[in-house]
Amino acid sequence: MRVGELSKRSGVAVPTIKYYLREGLLPAGVLTSPNQAHYDDEHLRRLRLVRALIDVGGLSIASVRDVLAAIDTRDESLHNKLGAVQEAISQPGTVELDPLAIADVQAFFARHGETECADVTQSNVTHMLAAALSSGRSIGHDQIRDLLDPYLEGLKIIAQADLEYVVRHTSPDDVIESMVVGTLIGDTVLKALRRLAHAQVSRDMIGDGPAQN
Amino acid sequence: MRVGELSKRSGVAVPTIKYYLREGLLPAGVLTSPNQAHYDDEHLRRLRLVRALIDVGGLSIASVRDVLAAIDTRDESLHNKLGAVQEAISQPGTVELDPLAIADVQAFFARHGETECADVTQSNVTHMLAAALSSGRSIGHDQIRDLLDPYLEGLKIIAQADLEYVVRHTSPDDVIESMVVGTLIGDTVLKALRRLAHAQVSRDMIGDGPAQN
Repeated sequence: MRVGELSKRSGVAVPTIKYYLREGLLPAGVLTSPNQAHYDDEHLRRLRLVRALIDVGGLSIASVRDVLAAIDTRDESLHNKLGAVQEAISQPGTVELDPLAIADVQAFFARHGETECADVTQSNVTHMLAAALSSGRSIGHDQIRDLLDPYLEGLKIIAQADLEYVVRHTSPDDVIESMVVGTLIGDTVLKALRRLAHAQVSRDMIGDGPAQN
Repeated sequence: MRVGELSKRSGVAVPTIKYYLREGLLPAGVLTSPNQAHYDDEHLRRLRLVRALIDVGGLSIASVRDVLAAIDTRDESLHNKLGAVQEAISQPGTVELDPLAIADVQAFFARHGETECADVTQSNVTHMLAAALSSGRSIGHDQIRDLLDPYLEGLKIIAQADLEYVVRHTSPDDVIESMVVGTLIGDTVLKALRRLAHAQVSRDMIGDGPAQN
């Protein structure tokens, strides 16, 4: 298809597509004449992935490029590739790290036998965790560290469902792409559902004042 | 304390504090002379909360104002107040909603007896959920809806831990504040730990290539 058709089918404006092509987020089309290129379904799929990363994941162009590079690497085990992608989509914030929060995170990783990823300077994911605990400490919530273990317990149920979803609905070539999309979309789904879970649990534990129904 | 001391103890620059005062995010100090105001620990606490909402939660000034208004309301049941705060911290994105995704969300709420919050035009939380499913559908992942039930199951463990934390560590006056901070900080903690849970589960299910240790 031509770029106009690609735009129509993806809902992405032609100048934006050209921008992605210049930034290397989308591979060049096949030239069919000196100033005309042909795009295929693979371009359409990649374009939708780029939009999902930007719209749903809120990623910067630079992060999208990192994620695509991790997806396109062919010489790594699936597990390591997944790790690389997840590092790319976990952007460290600007919160100053509290040494006590870093110690909390390291103790948590040690408890779970995950010492290799406990270094905040080596892992964006670990940095993100230490930053969240640092923010908690700065406003007097040192004890948020006690939530890490029950959180991990709940998340294992969720991660199990994620992995089963990927295995059931995805061809082996698409596993990484599915995991990335699932992780980003899943983050938003979890945020929303967590509010619902809070509401349900708080209704049971605290009550909602005057009886309803 | 004077504004300089408030700045030193909070780590927030004086011009920023003055900006928050003008925007109504921080109550005025008590004037001790025509051009000098006195601030107390309550100001310090509120200032740290504002910073947490902005830095950790990524909230806009307008959303921070909504959250503070919900926290400061005194004539609502705790359960309803919590609901109002959680609406304020759930900002609807710009994703176009897919009618099929809306139907998925409504079916999910109906399954869980939560029909009153199933309207995407009435609830930011529900809108957020429908937007995430719409993004999934736009890239061919219609079946993400199948994850909602296991996600809620895992999140109930997490919500239970959250509520117990609040009950254990917080005086009744601070419950809402703790829930807000815990929700925002907790979202980041969950994001980070979810990556860890994925790594653990994927190592079990997929393996990580050449044996390690």
